Amino acid sequence: MASVEVGIGLLGYGTVGSSVNRLLVESGDEIERATGHRLRVVRALVRDIGKERPFPPSDGVLTTDFAAIRDDPNIHVVAEVMGGFDPAGGYVRELLDAGKPVVSANKQLVARDGADLFATASAAGVQLRFEASVCAAIPVVKVLRESLVVSNVHRVLGIVNGTTNFILSRMERGGSYAEALAEAQELGYAEADPTDDVNGADAAAKMAILATVAFGSRVRFEDVERRGIEEIEPSHVAAAAELGMVVRLVGIATLSHGAVDVRVQPTLVERTHALAAVDGAFNAVMLQGDAIREITLEGPGAGGIETASAVVADLVSVVGTAGTGFLQNDACWRELERLPPTDWRAPFYVHLEVADRPGVLAHAASRLAAHDVSVAQLVQRLDDGRATLELVLHETRLGDLADALREIAAFPEVLNPPFVLPVISARAL
Amino acid sequence: MASVEVGIGLLGYGTVGSSVNRLLVESGDEIERATGHRLRVVRALVRDIGKERPFPPSDGVLTTDFAAIRDDPNIHVVAEVMGGFDPAGGYVRELLDAGKPVVSANKQLVARDGADLFATASAAGVQLRFEASVCAAIPVVKVLRESLVVSNVHRVLGIVNGTTNFILSRMERGGSYAEALAEAQELGYAEADPTDDVNGADAAAKMAILATVAFGSRVRFEDVERRGIEEIEPSHVAAAAELGMVVRLVGIATLSHGAVDVRVQPTLVERTHALAAVDGAFNAVMLQGDAIREITLEGPGAGGIETASAVVADLVSVVGTAGTGFLQNDACWRELERLPPTDWRAPFYVHLEVADRPGVLAHAASRLAAHDVSVAQLVQRLDDGRATLELVLHETRLGDLADALREIAAFPEVLNPPFVLPVISARAL
Repeated sequence: MASVEVGIGLLGYGTVGSSVNRLLVESGDEIERATGHRLRVVRALVRDIGKERPFPPSDGVLTTDFAAIRDDPNIHVVAEVMGGFDPAGGYVRELLDAGKPVVSANKQLVARDGADLFATASAAGVQLRFEASVCAAIPVVKVLRESLVVSNVHRVLGIVNGTTNFILSRMERGGSYAEALAEAQELGYAEADPTDDVNGADAAAKMAILATVAFGSRVRFEDVERRGIEEIEPSHVAAAAELGMVVRLVGIATLSHGAVDVRVQPTLVERTHALAAVDGAFNAVMLQGDAIREITLEGPGAGGIETASAVVADLVSVVGTAGTGFLQNDACWRELERLPPTDWRAPFYVHLEVADRPGVLAHAASRLAAHDVSVAQLVQRLDDGRATLELVLHETRLGDLADALREIAAFPEVLNPPFVLPVISARAL
Repeated sequence: MASVEVGIGLLGYGTVGSSVNRLLVESGDEIERATGHRLRVVRALVRDIGKERPFPPSDGVLTTDFAAIRDDPNIHVVAEVMGGFDPAGGYVRELLDAGKPVVSANKQLVARDGADLFATASAAGVQLRFEASVCAAIPVVKVLRESLVVSNVHRVLGIVNGTTNFILSRMERGGSYAEALAEAQELGYAEADPTDDVNGADAAAKMAILATVAFGSRVRFEDVERRGIEEIEPSHVAAAAELGMVVRLVGIATLSHGAVDVRVQPTLVERTHALAAVDGAFNAVMLQGDAIREITLEGPGAGGIETASAVVADLVSVVGTAGTGFLQNDACWRELERLPPTDWRAPFYVHLEVADRPGVLAHAASRLAAHDVSVAQLVQRLDDGRATLELVLHETRLGDLADALREIAAFPEVLNPPFVLPVISARAL
């Protein structure tokens, strides 16, 4: 099918905006193959054209004149990635009125002015999408709206703020709230002014949007019961640990007997619960409904490129649901060769049973080393003249491991064929 | 907008087919509000019309004549929920050739004949969707195709077979492979003939489909390296435990230097890794890519109604991407009242500091009981004439708890205001 040119306008060209442009340039071919459309940033609204920027756009793309975007017939969709209420809210309304679909990454705007913005979009008959406004790259809005339409979702549990999740996780390893916050700031997980994160406002805006989509009834930011983590002390974290639990800032939205409750608050979560395992600055959203029981989505909830990837997904969905879209096509567009199985790499576990004679371990170790296989962890047990070796190896080429094990298995001291499994580690071995 | 009538044909009316009809009937209003289309099952192909069935369709819907579906101009989309290769594969081809979009739940068919089926669909210019063929209700195909189009996914890790996940989890609590399998069969997590589950064939078909979509290059069932769990012994599980790991059947698809590797095999997974936490018969898929880092989707990977929910999601996507769809509309269609915050229910944690005098605990307990608040767990510590009480309560109405705590806080023995947090438990308290 012939490609359709789609002009994109950007409101804002900061971290997210420049990442959107970068993704559209670098993945232009993938998008065209998937959707039949070539997406190109035509204009980007900024305050200061002269400022240094990452991934600067082509000459003439930056403009300080909003009307140059609103009135340009070559701009078919606009991504609002500037944030704030004013002027962003007014711009979005004007664009929708002008018949241009809008994709917004602005959670405060969607959570507070959603009703009005969607009324404007509906009246104009154009799309307003907002995946990037909640949990960055995690596609929870699309999943709720398109995949779970018949699921009667009645409960949404979310860890939707990475800063507070990092701070509370950090406090488990000792240290006060203030120390954990300082570390989060140092590592870039918390802003210089972390107020909206630690008082729950950021999470509340996200939960308002998620509850609105999940329950189909408007939940505004102001409707969310909210309590921050500022008062959490090491003693609370210790008491939770004693009960086999952890403290987390959890958003809980409930639809019960036709009424809605949405709250964000410090919550005790049992260690074995999936939400307790959500790592550092990651986000997770659990959707509980009739037909699906429980579906959990987890991933990075913040970041420029992660947010930009959600903006691009929304742009793709806008063009994919246009008459010219062909998202339905075969997913295959290339023929990749198969990796020779021996070239596959992983960390491995090896179980060896050997006769307990001097030099066997040294011999085995030298065979491994000769094939570039290196040992991360070793447990040796003796049992009645026979030794059991449990080895965890660093990442290794499967072919190298097989060669080494073939040589080892040929030792007269080796009693059984080596037993091998790959290993998935929480961190790189 | 006016509603559009969409006639649905079903190939098969077993567990999945009848659940699809049930969801379309019971959630017809939701679907119509979300998409502008009223979906109705017009005909369902079966072998024996007289057989007793769950959720029997209206008179005249069941037919034994495939042509009555293929040639009916009132049937706009067909869901293939009969399984098997023959005659399912031929039927799907004939439907696509006849210009009817098809939604398939048939993983073996898609994994083995995908190339040919998609060529047929492309030639006819109609959609072929297959969300239900992988991991039931977990919307991983839609997420890969529509949300992660620019993510350059290069690795997919999956626990995609619930039977083996249940068996291996069960073996951690002691018992042999045979005992765990028998228990899985008793509980309905394994079929009477579990061959395709335990030898990895089921997981391999799913990984072939996932790798195809993730990498955009055809991976057939035969291309997947495969090893089952039949040889896993209690000693392996014990050795893994000693290393802080668990044994799981993991699918690993890798795109590395332009080459693809897809394998399904027993794997050691570190206890702190998210895949180790995947519960019993649940499935989880981790997608690793450039812009998204890592996104995990988890949920029920099997079941009639869960599979049917994915079939319905695909039907909705077919009509939503048609010219008449309006999936883009405001998600809100109703106005629900807010639950009075005191009516919100949860298990709670309460921290109390009291002077260590006789009768304080009894007094507090009686106030809780008077308000129907019941204690699940209690830890009392003494420290220098003061007692600290840590209470975990069963699910309680927040208003009742607040009333009880107000009375308790009024005791002269209570030294500080009670500190309260809600609790999320891995199981119901």
